[in-house]
Amino acid sequence: MTPLIDGLQYANWSEKIFRQMRAGGVDAVHVTITYHETFRETVQVIERWNRWFELFPDLIFQGRTAADVSRARDTGRTAIFFGSQNPSCIEDDIGLVEVLHTLGLRFMQLTYNNQSLLASGCYEDTDSGLTRMGRAVVSEMNRVGMVVDMSHSAERSTLEAIEHSTRPITISHANLHSWHPALRNKSDTLLRALGQSGGFLGLSVYPHHLKGGSACTLQDWCDMVARALDLVGPRQVGIGTDLCQDQPDSIVEWMRTGRWTKTVDYGEGSADAPGFPPMPAWFHDNRDFGSLRAGLKAAGLDLAAIDGVMGGNWHRFFEISFGPAEMPQTLSRRAVG
Amino acid sequence: MTPLIDGLQYANWSEKIFRQMRAGGVDAVHVTITYHETFRETVQVIERWNRWFELFPDLIFQGRTAADVSRARDTGRTAIFFGSQNPSCIEDDIGLVEVLHTLGLRFMQLTYNNQSLLASGCYEDTDSGLTRMGRAVVSEMNRVGMVVDMSHSAERSTLEAIEHSTRPITISHANLHSWHPALRNKSDTLLRALGQSGGFLGLSVYPHHLKGGSACTLQDWCDMVARALDLVGPRQVGIGTDLCQDQPDSIVEWMRTGRWTKTVDYGEGSADAPGFPPMPAWFHDNRDFGSLRAGLKAAGLDLAAIDGVMGGNWHRFFEISFGPAEMPQTLSRRAVG
Repeated sequence: MTPLIDGLQYANWSEKIFRQMRAGGVDAVHVTITYHETFRETVQVIERWNRWFELFPDLIFQGRTAADVSRARDTGRTAIFFGSQNPSCIEDDIGLVEVLHTLGLRFMQLTYNNQSLLASGCYEDTDSGLTRMGRAVVSEMNRVGMVVDMSHSAERSTLEAIEHSTRPITISHANLHSWHPALRNKSDTLLRALGQSGGFLGLSVYPHHLKGGSACTLQDWCDMVARALDLVGPRQVGIGTDLCQDQPDSIVEWMRTGRWTKTVDYGEGSADAPGFPPMPAWFHDNRDFGSLRAGLKAAGLDLAAIDGVMGGNWHRFFEISFGPAEMPQTLSRRAVG
Repeated sequence: MTPLIDGLQYANWSEKIFRQMRAGGVDAVHVTITYHETFRETVQVIERWNRWFELFPDLIFQGRTAADVSRARDTGRTAIFFGSQNPSCIEDDIGLVEVLHTLGLRFMQLTYNNQSLLASGCYEDTDSGLTRMGRAVVSEMNRVGMVVDMSHSAERSTLEAIEHSTRPITISHANLHSWHPALRNKSDTLLRALGQSGGFLGLSVYPHHLKGGSACTLQDWCDMVARALDLVGPRQVGIGTDLCQDQPDSIVEWMRTGRWTKTVDYGEGSADAPGFPPMPAWFHDNRDFGSLRAGLKAAGLDLAAIDGVMGGNWHRFFEISFGPAEMPQTLSRRAVG
């Protein structure tokens, strides 16, 4: 049986949520551990996770390889894979890529909305593409086995990341701009390029990414899934819910403004609705993946496609993504010398 | 064939020294990566090691488990095991014990000469034993599999560490005070307690720890090895050379004074001889372990004892020390909850 994998969550973690993941049969989740945090602050979050792993060994454990997804399934637990939504955690220091990979970081976004040291975010007026450090860091991420995630990046930067990366990249949580023209959703051009490069798209159920917002119907969403499979590739699409369960609104403020501005930035929200939007009726928490599966069936997807979207596709992507790059030893010295 | 292991070095690392380790047939070394460095500074040193591992994969790799010693032997390389000579690297944060263990730290001294947050160093006037945080950190080190090293600690603190630790501890680099009454050498009382608890002693060739200093004869040193085997136990003694090859004298200043004083502290040196002392004639670098072996044979040790001292004993100690503590899952939640 294929595993159930969610390609992005940032919940206010608790035993309750860990138990809901078990109730929902979720075998693995890519969890965001850091946005604008420095390296040291990111390590403090890892310490908190280490405590949760120690306290709840019957519910969760840290995922490091694709095999951990199967281990989770076999032992009735959820494997937690770490990711970052911004490169603040590596500061200005490329050596931290390997250090954080050793600590379990398996995904890193090159930007979160704004310009970073590596690339341009999707909210910038000017998209200047990958920076010098951006190219160097993508190569280092390729070497150690950390996935380049461009969910919050601008289009040219994303196309350049696809071009420069020697391993497939991901957009772990976004939808089709042609379905719902939100700033964070991605153009068909970009998604075709992603697919042709072997890259991966995780589809979001975060209301700002949905046609009709919180009122979006499950059928509408599932029709979009079918279009995404055509655009990107039948084995290159999965789910990345962007579930932010139980978070106070102060957290969405942190996501949007970090420490980079003294004024309010509403991001995908507005002055009238600055907080987290209400979730759609058909997806509230980790117990609701069954309704997504039922919706995909009702939309006419065949069983293989449904299994792929629900986790099989992410699992294959994990298999090719988390290990060190294969590089002839004779090359390795020259390449870094 | 039993492996050759050195239980402590702090060289000014270079390709030259890595090649000398191969020439000397050294299978594994516990290397000091940090003294007074903060966590972030320690991570920078780890980054430097990661570069060396990347640049010289045919000479060295990072050791994490006892099995890596055999792998080093089988592939003609040296396994590098990280250690800290002071707990500065965990700052005031017990969560950093597991983080640093994940990054490969396998040994940590609770003190370096001075009082630390954890225990008293051997240069303090008053030895107040393990602190509250000291007891908590020893338990955490026991849990994750990081060896408590008391080489630079005071006697009461060391006895309390032996008592409090549920796993054997080490004095990785020191000699017998009854042989040479240096402040850093250890009393027979302490070494008997260490042996009875299953602990481990690594014997030093650093001149300040030697009878007669740099003029100490190999025969004298080997006679002390035989006494140590009697005192501590035939399978609980190895070598911890304390080799500081190619280091400038500024480094011994850093070791002694870190950032804790504005005046000069000569430590084991003196105003007349503030720098590193000259090594004894029979041990200059990693190519000289053969002379130690020959000396032990000349001193009348049998082959099994010699193999044990040269590395077999450390290897067994590594086997029981670097993995997580075995703890029933039912206990684990209660113990930390």
